Amino acid sequence: MRRRLAGRAALETADGPAELAALLDGADALLAWDFNSDAVRTAWPRDPARAPRWVHAASAGVDRLMFPELVGTPGLRVTNSRGVFEQPIAEWVAGVVLAFAKDLPGSWERQRQRVWEHRETRRVHGSTALVVGAGPIGRAVGRTLRALGARVRLTGRRERADDPEFGRIHGSSGVDGEFGELLGGADWVVAAAPLTDATRGLFDAAAFARMRPGAAFVNVGRGPLVVEDDLLAALRSGTGRPARAALDVFCREPLPAASPLWEAPGLLVSPHMSGDAVGWEEELAQVFLAEFERWTADRPARNAVDLHLGYVPMTPQP
Amino acid sequence: MRRRLAGRAALETADGPAELAALLDGADALLAWDFNSDAVRTAWPRDPARAPRWVHAASAGVDRLMFPELVGTPGLRVTNSRGVFEQPIAEWVAGVVLAFAKDLPGSWERQRQRVWEHRETRRVHGSTALVVGAGPIGRAVGRTLRALGARVRLTGRRERADDPEFGRIHGSSGVDGEFGELLGGADWVVAAAPLTDATRGLFDAAAFARMRPGAAFVNVGRGPLVVEDDLLAALRSGTGRPARAALDVFCREPLPAASPLWEAPGLLVSPHMSGDAVGWEEELAQVFLAEFERWTADRPARNAVDLHLGYVPMTPQP
Repeated sequence: MRRRLAGRAALETADGPAELAALLDGADALLAWDFNSDAVRTAWPRDPARAPRWVHAASAGVDRLMFPELVGTPGLRVTNSRGVFEQPIAEWVAGVVLAFAKDLPGSWERQRQRVWEHRETRRVHGSTALVVGAGPIGRAVGRTLRALGARVRLTGRRERADDPEFGRIHGSSGVDGEFGELLGGADWVVAAAPLTDATRGLFDAAAFARMRPGAAFVNVGRGPLVVEDDLLAALRSGTGRPARAALDVFCREPLPAASPLWEAPGLLVSPHMSGDAVGWEEELAQVFLAEFERWTADRPARNAVDLHLGYVPMTPQP
Repeated sequence: MRRRLAGRAALETADGPAELAALLDGADALLAWDFNSDAVRTAWPRDPARAPRWVHAASAGVDRLMFPELVGTPGLRVTNSRGVFEQPIAEWVAGVVLAFAKDLPGSWERQRQRVWEHRETRRVHGSTALVVGAGPIGRAVGRTLRALGARVRLTGRRERADDPEFGRIHGSSGVDGEFGELLGGADWVVAAAPLTDATRGLFDAAAFARMRPGAAFVNVGRGPLVVEDDLLAALRSGTGRPARAALDVFCREPLPAASPLWEAPGLLVSPHMSGDAVGWEEELAQVFLAEFERWTADRPARNAVDLHLGYVPMTPQP
């Protein structure tokens, strides 16, 4: 990166919050590498005139950047790393869904005990998947599950009937309405939404209670989409709503060693790695450099975050 | 089954070899439920005139039925259960491939130790899969891996360039020739061939040595396609040729508790269940009943086993 920006930008690297505050004051642009830190918030200049004019996130989610002082900075451009994580995450979700359908965890468990025990498997072909989140990641997940023969339903912030790829995009608010019916009709429920005020805690006890017995729940969005205590209780309840879950994201990361989630029945704990396929760091650099070219040329950003929505909308907002 | 054949056939069930010998003598037809038993061979009538005229296998593979006395019975019809196992097996293979690509076994292992350790994942999209076996199971596997974005190459007994679905079907004999190159070019090698004299022991030390470091090997055909001691040595060697393997079939089933395969590094031991999705027994009954209708109506079988090849050919043989 340093080499590729040589002569075009003075590049400084902050390793801690104090250093960041010093460097950020008066900087033109910020590349935020750590998606899961409040360091930017802590270090953000109090004087908007000293704030950077462009913030780029080396992640898809920008929830940690959506604090009032940043959102309120006049003329600020915020971009994300759309295009890097979608396909790997979709494959990871498909892998988890198939592993659950075929009870691969049960096979590994029995293997450790040298137990040969035949079981019947489930089919993904002909099953129903509900993907919550109709952005690039949710769509990639939906596309991949559909390629495996699943019926796929997507929900998004904005209901619409004219999606070119998925037809109808359903709403995702209110478990007593259509969203509850969608939850109840799905074999696989995948959370792939950005973390916003509208999605925080969306998967709570009421949502899990709506799920079909035997369903599996997967979260590749952000940890706080889920009320973790409610998921823990649901898995422990033995009702099968859900019967299994896979979390790649958590309210606290790394997940503390004392967390009861490590031993929750039917749960896969994955260390926030679903999107990080070999080569991801180089791809992130490419996305940043492409946005750098646009920014320095005064051209519109490709991955412009809508600061009111808190993510990059699929279509420009009115 | 008994109910559905009432008035059309006298149905007797043999639970052991002695009983089978008594019932088989003079019977018109045999439904062989246990694919992995020599009971039919032991019980086969010495007098061809007393042998059944139709044998139906409740399995895809018929290798245990291809003994000389049966193969030499004049006018014998042998059918298999093509159509039941293909899609579930293809999903199982895709699940294993994705689980390996995303190191799900490593995540479960670390979870047991409450260890949060980020790793990079591999992509299936853009990777290369070699499927050995161009019958219905190999084709379903190929189709599913292709749906995930993998480049798929199929091998079969008969090389040809005009396959309507996969274009070229490659040969699979001789690791010093094209087959060796195919092995070396694949991220995933899937054995989905019938067990015949031509395929027995196909995956031996020489074949594994040809694989690409980091490759994974999956066997959903029959155990003896693999020289198990050679696979064990290859996995233990640390060369990564292959780095991982998944076996759903074994030379001895159930796999004996004392087998070193249970603890082979990087190996998934699965108890011959990849094809058995919920409802499989009813589907097997349906296939049998459909063949029963054809047989009683003197119509050609749908799933006619070629007794010289030892499987149901994709296209009628000249």
